[in-house]
Amino acid sequence: MSKRILLEVAYDGTNYHGWQLQPNASSIEAVLNEHLSALLKEDIKVIGASRTDAGVHAKGNIAVFDTNARIPAEKISYALNQRLPEDIVIRQSREVDPDFHPRRQKSVKHYSYQIWHDRFPMPIGQNYMLFLYIPLDIDKMQQAASYLIGEHDFTSFCSIHTEVVDKVRTILSITVEEQDSVLKIDVTGTGFLYNMVRIIAGTLLEVGKGTYPPEHLKEILEARDRALAGPTVPAKGLTLVSYSFERM
Amino acid sequence: MSKRILLEVAYDGTNYHGWQLQPNASSIEAVLNEHLSALLKEDIKVIGASRTDAGVHAKGNIAVFDTNARIPAEKISYALNQRLPEDIVIRQSREVDPDFHPRRQKSVKHYSYQIWHDRFPMPIGQNYMLFLYIPLDIDKMQQAASYLIGEHDFTSFCSIHTEVVDKVRTILSITVEEQDSVLKIDVTGTGFLYNMVRIIAGTLLEVGKGTYPPEHLKEILEARDRALAGPTVPAKGLTLVSYSFERM
Repeated sequence: MSKRILLEVAYDGTNYHGWQLQPNASSIEAVLNEHLSALLKEDIKVIGASRTDAGVHAKGNIAVFDTNARIPAEKISYALNQRLPEDIVIRQSREVDPDFHPRRQKSVKHYSYQIWHDRFPMPIGQNYMLFLYIPLDIDKMQQAASYLIGEHDFTSFCSIHTEVVDKVRTILSITVEEQDSVLKIDVTGTGFLYNMVRIIAGTLLEVGKGTYPPEHLKEILEARDRALAGPTVPAKGLTLVSYSFERM
Repeated sequence: MSKRILLEVAYDGTNYHGWQLQPNASSIEAVLNEHLSALLKEDIKVIGASRTDAGVHAKGNIAVFDTNARIPAEKISYALNQRLPEDIVIRQSREVDPDFHPRRQKSVKHYSYQIWHDRFPMPIGQNYMLFLYIPLDIDKMQQAASYLIGEHDFTSFCSIHTEVVDKVRTILSITVEEQDSVLKIDVTGTGFLYNMVRIIAGTLLEVGKGTYPPEHLKEILEARDRALAGPTVPAKGLTLVSYSFERM
C-alpha cells in the first residue's frame, strides 16, 4: 500500500541550478530523487511546492512523494540526511493524505529578500545578501509596499517568461526593515508568480532610491505591464523562509 | 614622511588558518601584507588587533601599518578591495597617530557566538553557526553569565596554550538570546585571553544542558583551573563583531 510522504527541505541554493530537474545541471529535485531512490530502493520522483530559481535559498520548501517502503515516515528525514550533501537538509518528514498536492493546497508562503546596505560588501554571508551602496528611503519603501497588499493582478510583477494566464494573487504582508546595515524585505502571500518577489524587491528599491514616489506603485499595478516595474534583483538575496498549509 | 594607517577588516574565516602569519598556510595577515605591498610598492607588515584563530570570522577586526606612499589614507580601502579575495573586505582606512598600536590602546571588543539550535543542521549559513540539538535552559545560561561580568582572573577560561601571565580581564556584558532557532551569545569586554570567548560559550552551554547550576560559575572562576570550565566550542560559530578604541 503506497503512502504519500511530505518533506520540509532547507537548502543553500548557491551551488544548484534551482529546484527543477533539467538536463546537464544539478538541481535540488534531482538530488532528492537520487538519494530517496537509493534509500527506499524504488524509483522516487518528488513534487515540489516552490520551484525556486538558481541561487535562491530555502529554509522550508516542501516536497511530497509516494512510496511503498515500510520505513516509518518520521524516520525518513534522519536516514535521508545521512546521504544528502551538506547544503541540503530535510527538516521533517511525515505522512500526508494520498491526495495532498503541495501546489494545489491553500498555503501561505513567506519569502525574505536580504540586502547588505553598506559602503563595502560584507564577506560573511555574502551568498545570502545582495550588496548595495546607495542612499535608500526605507519609510518610502514601506509606504510603496502597502499598495501591493491584498488581491491584485500582478502582471507587472511577473517575468514575461511564464505561461501562467491568471495573474491575480494575494499578498498578505510586506515589511521593509533595516538593522545593522542589513535591509530585509519580507513578503508573505498565498501565491506568487514567476520572479514576483524579486521584481517587488527591485521595484521597492527604485522607490527607495527616489526613481519614483510610493504612489506610483498603483499605476504600475494597474498598467499590467512588466516593463513599468523595477528590475528583477539577483537570486542570491532571496530565501523561501516557510511554506505552510491550511490542512496537512 | 611615514604615516600610520588603520584598517577595519571584515572576513569570512572559513578558508584561512587564522589571522596570524604561519609557514605553509594561508592567513588573513599574509594576504593583507601581500596585497598592501603590491599596492603601495613597499614591504608592508600589518599589526593586527585580534589574532583570531582558524575558522573565526570578523566583521570589524583592526590592523595598522606604516607607509610612505602618498595615496590618501581614505582611498586605500577602495584600492585594496579591488585586489583582495572576496572573503576579505576593508571596511575603512584612515590615518592614525604614529604611536597608535591596536593592542596597546584601551578598547572594547564585541564577540558573538552563534548556535543553530534545532533538530537538524541549517544549510544556510552553516559556516557561521555551531549546530547543536539538545534541550537548553536559556535563562540559566544568562544567569550563569552574570557571574562572569566584571573584573576577574579568567585563568579557568583560558587555553593552557598561552604564555600570558596576567589573566585578569574585564567583561562588560554577556547576553544569551534565542530567536528562530538561532542561539546567540554576545560578549563585550576590554580584553580577552586565548580561546576565552569559546570557553565561556562552552561553559554556558554546560549550564544550559544542566551539567551544573549557574552558581557553579563562581567556583570555576575561583579555582583558576582550565579543567573545571566547559569545552572550547568550535571556531566557526565565533565572529569578532567590532573593536572600538577610546582614542584613535
